[in-house]
Parts: sequence; structure tokens; C-alpha cells
Amino acid sequence: MTAQQDIPSRMVYIVSDGTGITAEALARSILSQFNLAYSRIYIPFVDTLKKAQTARLQIQAEFDRTGIPPIVFSTLVIQELVDEIHLAKALHLDVIQPFIEPLKQELGIAPKQEIGLSHQNMENEEYKLRMEAINFTLEHDDGISEQNLQEADVILIGVSRSGKTPTSLYLAMQYGLKVANYPLIPDDFDRKVLPASLLAQKQKLFGLTIQPERLSKVRNERRPNSHYASLGNCQYEVAEAERLMLMNGVQFLSSTSKSIEEISTAIVSRMRAYSTQSINLSADSIAHFNLK
Amino acid sequence: MTAQQDIPSRMVYIVSDGTGITAEALARSILSQFNLAYSRIYIPFVDTLKKAQTARLQIQAEFDRTGIPPIVFSTLVIQELVDEIHLAKALHLDVIQPFIEPLKQELGIAPKQEIGLSHQNMENEEYKLRMEAINFTLEHDDGISEQNLQEADVILIGVSRSGKTPTSLYLAMQYGLKVANYPLIPDDFDRKVLPASLLAQKQKLFGLTIQPERLSKVRNERRPNSHYASLGNCQYEVAEAERLMLMNGVQFLSSTSKSIEEISTAIVSRMRAYSTQSINLSADSIAHFNLK
Repeated sequence: MTAQQDIPSRMVYIVSDGTGITAEALARSILSQFNLAYSRIYIPFVDTLKKAQTARLQIQAEFDRTGIPPIVFSTLVIQELVDEIHLAKALHLDVIQPFIEPLKQELGIAPKQEIGLSHQNMENEEYKLRMEAINFTLEHDDGISEQNLQEADVILIGVSRSGKTPTSLYLAMQYGLKVANYPLIPDDFDRKVLPASLLAQKQKLFGLTIQPERLSKVRNERRPNSHYASLGNCQYEVAEAERLMLMNGVQFLSSTSKSIEEISTAIVSRMRAYSTQSINLSADSIAHFNLK
Repeated sequence: MTAQQDIPSRMVYIVSDGTGITAEALARSILSQFNLAYSRIYIPFVDTLKKAQTARLQIQAEFDRTGIPPIVFSTLVIQELVDEIHLAKALHLDVIQPFIEPLKQELGIAPKQEIGLSHQNMENEEYKLRMEAINFTLEHDDGISEQNLQEADVILIGVSRSGKTPTSLYLAMQYGLKVANYPLIPDDFDRKVLPASLLAQKQKLFGLTIQPERLSKVRNERRPNSHYASLGNCQYEVAEAERLMLMNGVQFLSSTSKSIEEISTAIVSRMRAYSTQSINLSADSIAHFNLK
């Protein structure tokens, strides 16, 4: 704690007419460029003047209490609501508004100034595909089912606890991909060949590997002092898994020092150069990489 | 398709020194304000001048081919890379850079100008909590286990196919919450009371409901022409589930016209006024709502 005493500290407000999830992600990216300690307060669903007034009073009260201007990230699109929030004494960083005008100029069309356009709901076709991807991924976690494996967009392989499950779920949620994952176990190493059901889908296979030391640590949290978690066994499994993937021409990457976001993006990016897809924004859509 | 012929169309590039996920989310929010048809091309991990040059050439080639300036959303933080991308003929929307200078002025500290600060990796404590939340949530999906239910941050209840599973996973991934979910079934309706194990955790319960017509449609995709999917049965189940939740004082919301992002944010926001949390950004952290 003592080391942090000279780091400046601020209160950060995330104000959104929707969920605030985008504003939060951008705020984190921007603030990560500064050595700053901060607390975040989320004020989502600010879609009426009344709610904007409440938010403004809350922000102003923080300034009145501390004398230090809070930092306000907002994604409001209705000018009246923007103006209301701006009445509070704070550093206001509007993360949508500044980009509307240049786009309007470039496109020669007027913005809609409507709230809640960026999220899909259940009626939307792309949203349905995303939900199907999540269901498929859950049903094909950890090799539990080989049914409809040919429908998978990606099949992840790797030793137990190499990060397959969270990566699979993230790929489904973020990219709408149907992902199966399959644990590589000592039986596979003894046979020295991947299961036939996987080899039949070879172009969809992608491997995850991990530093044995890291793996041992993760496994020890789960099953302390087991053979399964021992460094020796982890070294053996990782070496065998990597050999198996190399022998079968399966590309793989190490999850050791990567976030699931980074692993997922790298997988999508490596499996195929990014393909393009036509989207009509009036039927809002998720980022979709075509891996077929 | 004919209705779309007068909608302007553009190529959109998402250029990032990281995954591009934040840039993509913001681009979608901003573009949703315009009635525009567009194709997206993702160029992630642009962290060297060489990669920036390749990206610049790709964007320029698109302009040379069509004569129409593409739209480029970028989250680059190294000035040299920004400058390189700007050489391409396009509408450049830098979504991080414009906010660095005002923050620098306000805080009186210099930005780091470093790449890759906004994602956590496996060594990070908060990241570990998020992975634990995902594992917990998977292990407590669909009432499969009541073990360690007291460790849950949220327990979702609702009839089959009301959106519990994707919402649970999203809450775990985005907010690092441990979520259990439990299907309400005819046995519960007959007993007219929630299971004792759930009532013991009443303050954590949150219900999802859904329009019977919508539910019937969703279930019919899964099990066509079944009693389970029939409108009559869906009406019965939804009415009984809502009655059970009302009788037990469990707050609930309808998932019918909401995205999982919206449902998740609404749950977090309703279960407790947003609480604050001190964060030192040098140990990067996820958005964490304290529900305890």
C-alpha cells in the first residue's frame, strides 16, 4: 500500500444510455495509459432527462465532497442528456459524440440520435446464431459429446487446464463461433495419434499449450499435491501434447501469459485471414468471422 | 434486399494494437447511429511499424480500388503507428488518442504510451477470480450441482429456455460473478414453493421470465411440436413461475426483448446499487460489482 501513496487517485463515472459495457472497456483502455488509482461507479440506462439529472447530481456531489473533479466517460447520444451531464463539475470524456460529426460529414447522412441501437435482442437472426453458438459450445465442452462435431467452427485441443473452456466460451459469446473442445490425455499420448473423429475435422483444430510450471500451479489449486498437478507430470503432458500437435500439423499457441480475449482473437486471426462480411446495420449484427 | 439499395455502403477497418474488441464495440455503437451498410475488416495486434505499414497499404488499396474512403477505427497508442495508418486515404477515427491529452492535462501526469496494458493475463489476481467465476458458473448451470451454492454471487431462476445459461455465463465473463442457475419445473409449481436450498440464499435469487409466445417459438426450435414447446404449456409454466417468484419475493425481469448484455447489466444494477471499488490500474482489473 505504501508504494501506492504517490499515485494520483480519482473517481471515475461510467455513464451510458445502455449497459455501459462499451464505455467501460474504452475507459479501461484509456486509463491504462496512466499510472492512476481509481474507483469506478457505473450509471447505466440513463435514457431520460430525469435519470441524467440524478446522475449529474451524483457526480457533482462527488466534486463538492472532495474538491477533485471526477472523470466521466459517457456514451450518451441524445444532446439534451449530454448537456445535462456536462453541468456537473468534472472532466467529461464523451466517447461517442466526437465521432458522429465527422461521420455525418463523410457519409452525408444525418445520425439517428436514438438510444439503444447497438445491442441485439432475441428477435435478431445474428443474436440467435450467437445463442446457438453458446449452446453448441456448452454441449461440446471437454469432449463430452462428439455429436454434430462437423458443425463446429473451431475445435480446441490441449491438456487439462490449458484454458480450453473459457476460450471456447469467449469465442462463442464474442464471435458467435461454435466451438468444441477436447482434452488431450495420456491415452492419446500412448496412441501417439489424435482420435479419428478429430482428425476428420483437421482444418478446424487449434491447440492450446501452457508452461508446465504455470500448469502445475493452476492444477495444484484444484487438486493439491496430486500426481496430476505435479511438475513432472505437467512437463510430461505438455511435451507429449506439443509433440502430438506438431506431428499432426495442428497449429497451437501458448495461453501462459495471454488473456482469453487475446487467445481468442489470435485463434480467429490465425485460423484464417480475416474475411469480410456485408452487414446492414439496421439489422444489427455481431462481429462474425467466417471460418468456413 | 431492394429496400437496402439506397443505403450508403462503406468498408470499415478495425485497427488495434491489441485484440480490437474494444474498438469493435465502440465502432458498432457509433455506426449504429447511421443507416449504413458496411463490411468490417479486423486488423488486430498492430504493434510494430511493419504491421502498421501492411495495414496502411491494405486500407489504401481499398480506396484505390473503389475511390470511396474507408472508415478506420483505431485504438493505437504509439504515435509512430498512428501516423503510419493516417497516411492511408480514409476517414480516420482514433478512439483512444483524443482522450489522452485532456486526461494528461487534468491529471498532470504523462501517459505511458505502452501497448497491451488493458488486458489481464493469467498471473493477475482479478483474472484468476474471473476464471474461477466461469468454472463455478459452468459447474452450477441448470441446477446440476447444489455444492457450494453459498459461494454464488447470483442465483438465477426461471423456466427452461428463459435465457438463464447465456446470462449466467455473461455475468461470469464480464463481471467476474459466480452464478448458479436453477430451472423452475412443474414439480416446483406443484409444491408451490422454491426448493429449500434456494430459499436459504434468497438475497441472491433473481428471476428471468419471458413472453409465452416467444418461449414457445424458442422451444419449438429445439423440440418441434412437443407438449413442452406448446403455447398452452408455455403459458402455464410462465404464469406459475411468475406467481412463485412473486410469492417468494424474488425480483425478476423479462428477457423477451433484451440482449444478454442488457439483462446482465440490469440484474447487477437491480440487485444492488452499484458499489464502488478502489482499483490501482497498474494491477489491471475487471469491472467488479460487489454484491455481498
